[in-house]
Amino acid sequence: MNPSLLEAFPTPTDAPIVIEHEAFEFTSLCPKTGHPDFGTITVRFQPRGARERGVCVELKSLKLYLQAFRTEGIFYEAVTDRIKSDLVKLMNPVWLQVHSKWSGRGGIRSTIRAEQGDVPARYQV
Amino acid sequence: MNPSLLEAFPTPTDAPIVIEHEAFEFTSLCPKTGHPDFGTITVRFQPRGARERGVCVELKSLKLYLQAFRTEGIFYEAVTDRIKSDLVKLMNPVWLQVHSKWSGRGGIRSTIRAEQGDVPARYQV
Amino acid sequence: MNPSLLEAFPTPTDAPIVIEHEAFEFTSLCPKTGHPDFGTITVRFQPRGARERGVCVELKSLKLYLQAFRTEGIFYEAVTDRIKSDLVKLMNPVWLQVHSKWSGRGGIRSTIRAEQGDVPARYQV
Amino acid sequence: MNPSLLEAFPTPTDAPIVIEHEAFEFTSLCPKTGHPDFGTITVRFQPRGARERGVCVELKSLKLYLQAFRTEGIFYEAVTDRIKSDLVKLMNPVWLQVHSKWSGRGGIRSTIRAEQGDVPARYQV
Amino acid sequence: MNPSLLEAFPTPTDAPIVIEHEAFEFTSLCPKTGHPDFGTITVRFQPRGARERGVCVELKSLKLYLQAFRTEGIFYEAVTDRIKSDLVKLMNPVWLQVHSKWSGRGGIRSTIRAEQGDVPARYQV
Amino acid sequence: MNPSLLEAFPTPTDAPIVIEHEAFEFTSLCPKTGHPDFGTITVRFQPRGARERGVCVELKSLKLYLQAFRTEGIFYEAVTDRIKSDLVKLMNPVWLQVHSKWSGRGGIRSTIRAEQGDVPARYQV
Amino acid sequence: MNPSLLEAFPTPTDAPIVIEHEAFEFTSLCPKTGHPDFGTITVRFQPRGARERGVCVELKSLKLYLQAFRTEGIFYEAVTDRIKSDLVKLMNPVWLQVHSKWSGRGGIRSTIRAEQGDVPARYQV
Amino acid sequence: MNPSLLEAFPTPTDAPIVIEHEAFEFTSLCPKTGHPDFGTITVRFQPRGARERGVCVELKSLKLYLQAFRTEGIFYEAVTDRIKSDLVKLMNPVWLQVHSKWSGRGGIRSTIRAEQGDVPARYQV
Amino acid sequence: MNPSLLEAFPTPTDAPIVIEHEAFEFTSLCPKTGHPDFGTITVRFQPRGARERGVCVELKSLKLYLQAFRTEGIFYEAVTDRIKSDLVKLMNPVWLQVHSKWSGRGGIRSTIRAEQGDVPARYQV
Amino acid sequence: MNPSLLEAFPTPTDAPIVIEHEAFEFTSLCPKTGHPDFGTITVRFQPRGARERGVCVELKSLKLYLQAFRTEGIFYEAVTDRIKSDLVKLMNPVWLQVHSKWSGRGGIRSTIRAEQGDVPARYQV
Repeated sequence: MNPSLLEAFPTPTDAPIVIEHEAFEFTSLCPKTGHPDFGTITVRFQPRGARERGVCVELKSLKLYLQAFRTEGIFYEAVTDRIKSDLVKLMNPVWLQVHSKWSGRGGIRSTIRAEQGDVPARYQV
Repeated sequence: MNPSLLEAFPTPTDAPIVIEHEAFEFTSLCPKTGHPDFGTITVRFQPRGARERGVCVELKSLKLYLQAFRTEGIFYEAVTDRIKSDLVKLMNPVWLQVHSKWSGRGGIRSTIRAEQGDVPARYQV
Repeated sequence: MNPSLLEAFPTPTDAPIVIEHEAFEFTSLCPKTGHPDFGTITVRFQPRGARERGVCVELKSLKLYLQAFRTEGIFYEAVTDRIKSDLVKLMNPVWLQVHSKWSGRGGIRSTIRAEQGDVPARYQV
Repeated sequence: MNPSLLEAFPTPTDAPIVIEHEAFEFTSLCPKTGHPDFGTITVRFQPRGARERGVCVELKSLKLYLQAFRTEGIFYEAVTDRIKSDLVKLMNPVWLQVHSKWSGRGGIRSTIRAEQGDVPARYQV
Repeated sequence: MNPSLLEAFPTPTDAPIVIEHEAFEFTSLCPKTGHPDFGTITVRFQPRGARERGVCVELKSLKLYLQAFRTEGIFYEAVTDRIKSDLVKLMNPVWLQVHSKWSGRGGIRSTIRAEQGDVPARYQV
Repeated sequence: MNPSLLEAFPTPTDAPIVIEHEAFEFTSLCPKTGHPDFGTITVRFQPRGARERGVCVELKSLKLYLQAFRTEGIFYEAVTDRIKSDLVKLMNPVWLQVHSKWSGRGGIRSTIRAEQGDVPARYQV
Repeated sequence: MNPSLLEAFPTPTDAPIVIEHEAFEFTSLCPKTGHPDFGTITVRFQPRGARERGVCVELKSLKLYLQAFRTEGIFYEAVTDRIKSDLVKLMNPVWLQVHSKWSGRGGIRSTIRAEQGDVPARYQV
Repeated sequence: MNPSLLEAFPTPTDAPIVIEHEAFEFTSLCPKTGHPDFGTITVRFQPRGARERGVCVELKSLKLYLQAFRTEGIFYEAVTDRIKSDLVKLMNPVWLQVHSKWSGRGGIRSTIRAEQGDVPARYQV
Repeated sequence: MNPSLLEAFPTPTDAPIVIEHEAFEFTSLCPKTGHPDFGTITVRFQPRGARERGVCVELKSLKLYLQAFRTEGIFYEAVTDRIKSDLVKLMNPVWLQVHSKWSGRGGIRSTIRAEQGDVPARYQV
Repeated sequence: MNPSLLEAFPTPTDAPIVIEHEAFEFTSLCPKTGHPDFGTITVRFQPRGARERGVCVELKSLKLYLQAFRTEGIFYEAVTDRIKSDLVKLMNPVWLQVHSKWSGRGGIRSTIRAEQGDVPARYQV
């Protein structure tokens, strides 16, 4: 949970692209009980283009950033909001979504969706 | 079926978030025959933001509230409407949906959908 | 194929609800060959609300009504249209859809869709 | 590949219906190599209603028409366009779609979509 | 990664068609580590019609063109943009999409979407 | 439920063969309630060889024989035993199995297995 | 959890049959926490034949017997052993198996297997 | 259905190997009705080793041999027996199995199994 | 990785039972790179019976014991052997199996199987 | 295809363990056409124990060894036999299996199985 782990590289083109990273081995800790939570974090965004000096998050740095939540006690809503904020600060993208989908606990599966900017309808589900 | 079991916590951010809880071990009783009904209850909503003093239903209290239907005789339509009404009263959300999807009985599977407020098209399926 | 088998109960609320019944053990007879046809009948509708004295089809009566097609020789299109008409007459709903999806015959699977009223886009697939 | 094999019957109602036939055992020949191609042909359409003297393709005649491609050397795009044209000529429907989805060849699976008239958004995927 | 491998044939009709090729055995090399990357490349486009002297990419030439990436060190975003650009140059289509979906690396699966022209909403997911 | 509907043809070879027919659209009636039961009947057997003047049940006659249960009120165990006995009488096979697998009723799915002769271990599951 | 609810009927044949009932909507209570447990109970047995005056458990009585666990606090191992013992007492079968497979709790799914008599290898998985 | 299309190559080793080819696009004609049949042919065998001058069927020749059934009217049992016999004649293998699994016709799916030699238990399913 | 976390309770019966716990949210650390490993640990065993004063591992203690590997750097083979040894020491069971199945790393998924005592053939897959 | 890439580590225990590595991103070249082949290589073995100074193949070295086939023209049977031989030479295991399962080519999917030593029945499928 250390945003300084995140690195970026310049967007390679001016044509609009949409990038999606689905991290299916995410784990953090429940801040109340200390028990582990398991889930999938999906990040989708349109970076700013090359002429706007846009940048994209680098994949390996994203992996290390997400691994750092392993020892953090943090609620579902806060994980989602935090990742969204850290990536928006890093990239200032045209738009960005973070969805977190959590394993069942007590017979209930939860999904949290946060987003920034004007997400096209086609990417909203 | 006791709304006083429901508890809430303050929405942690002002950025719009959408929260979904899928309770896949729901059971109530048929009011006519007394036989058990089994189904999945899905609740989706956008809470009011922090500045509006918005609140979100707390996950464990939702679990206990739903477990209380175990001994209630109640029709499919009434279960769905009741959960919707109790959660709307608790949270006064921007919008809220409740879908109940029931196991097959006599070769027929039923789904009931209820909602409050202006549900965005993307969450309407 | 006897509409008098259908019974209804008063809509329990004025809030808009959408009800879906998926009958996955439907069978009728081919009127040409007498061989059995097998399929799934899906009925979706928004009943009129309590203040409008709206009604909903009762689940067990729907089961008996659909079972009565077991000995009828009737084409795919006519089954679908007939169920739609009988349910519209019973309930006078805000809108109603009937989809029939048939098992493969000669390497072809058929689906027939009929509807009444202004079906919202989200339920149209 | 003989349109005279196609037969039609009068649309049984004036209420709008949508009919879909998915032929999952389609086979033709590659015109270059003579090797067999395998695929699924999906036909979807809204026939003109009874008052407009609308007609619907008869299921068994469609089966025989599609079987006749078994010995024809014909490209993916031409199969799709040909079926679309023959069915439009037969039925003059409100709208009609033909999708052909082909088995993998050399690690590539292809899908061709052709349509006539104003296909509603909900049937366009 | 040699655009001269791509060949085209004239669009066989003036009626609008949509063509999709899903290459599910794509492999290239990571430019940093030299390790192989595996993924699926999906190309979807509407070619210009016969009267506009439109052309469509020939399937076997597409296969050879994609196989040539096997020995190239190239990033996910660059693969996607490169294929899009080479196919746009070849066909000048009404619109074209390239999606690349990559196998998991370090617990993260990535998808890159690039497009040219006015892609209809129904093909945008 | 008329064994005279069953026809047979001479086993075409002396090499041992095993034949399996899975009838996935079987329906009969519950003798208590008159409600329809739906299930899958699987028949597996090794016919006697040509030199022994062995015979195999003809596929279309099997279809008609199974369809005749549509109007019969009969218990799960009796259906299974009856089909086994009728086929044994028809073919006098080396061995024969009949499995009936029934749709869920009241949250319980049932399977009945009957057999005749020395069924090899590999076919016993 | 009342064995007197169980009823039996005479085995209809002397040929060996194997009967399986899979109850996929079983629920009991955790004796420690009072929280509901959900699982699937599978019962498989070979009844004694007609000449031995063998009996088989009646399906509806089995349903009612299993429903009675809904209000019982009982451990996984005890549920499984209890059902096995009650059914053995009722039927005195040639052999009998009870498998209970439980929904995940805290990231762990459990299965308990109990049996009586000489279960053939083919039914042992 | 021309065994002269089959070619073989010398087994490359003396260590025992087992080879399996699953041809999932097989089609022949029903000798009664002339309608096409579709199925999957699975061939499994252990070739004789190099020292015994064993041979294995060549993959492309097998493809052409199986394609030649496309215009043949032949029963399920005869297809299976024929392929088995032609391959045994070609290779004289230690053992060989041919399974043919056919698409549903009239609600019944059939599977035919033929074999030669002493098939190990593990390959007998 | 602390065996003192494990607790046991007396086997409730003398009839042989087989118990299986599948922990599908297991995570440890790679001792070389420090990166997290994710997998599923399956434990299956037959406890000694009540008369032999047999014991069974308590489910919640097993959960806590497995969670303790979250901060341990340990190889696949060692995890599997360690869990097997700790559970054998705790329960002295008739037989016990531990299977660990690991998420893909570099395109390779690994499974390690360890066991103690005479595992029946039916549980050996 | 360089056995010197393979490295081993000492078996960590004397208790018998079984290790399985499934490499699902394997690719080599067809020696006839030069086109790429794609498949899954599964290696299963029981290493000799610690007291026998047994060794196990190291996972990363196995990955690099398998990647080296990317530029090799080699037949299915030879790939399988080669990997088996190189691993047997490296580890001298109690027993070892190599299965190669190949993507469909021309409508046929092939699987080759090779093994060394006395593979237990349970691992033979």
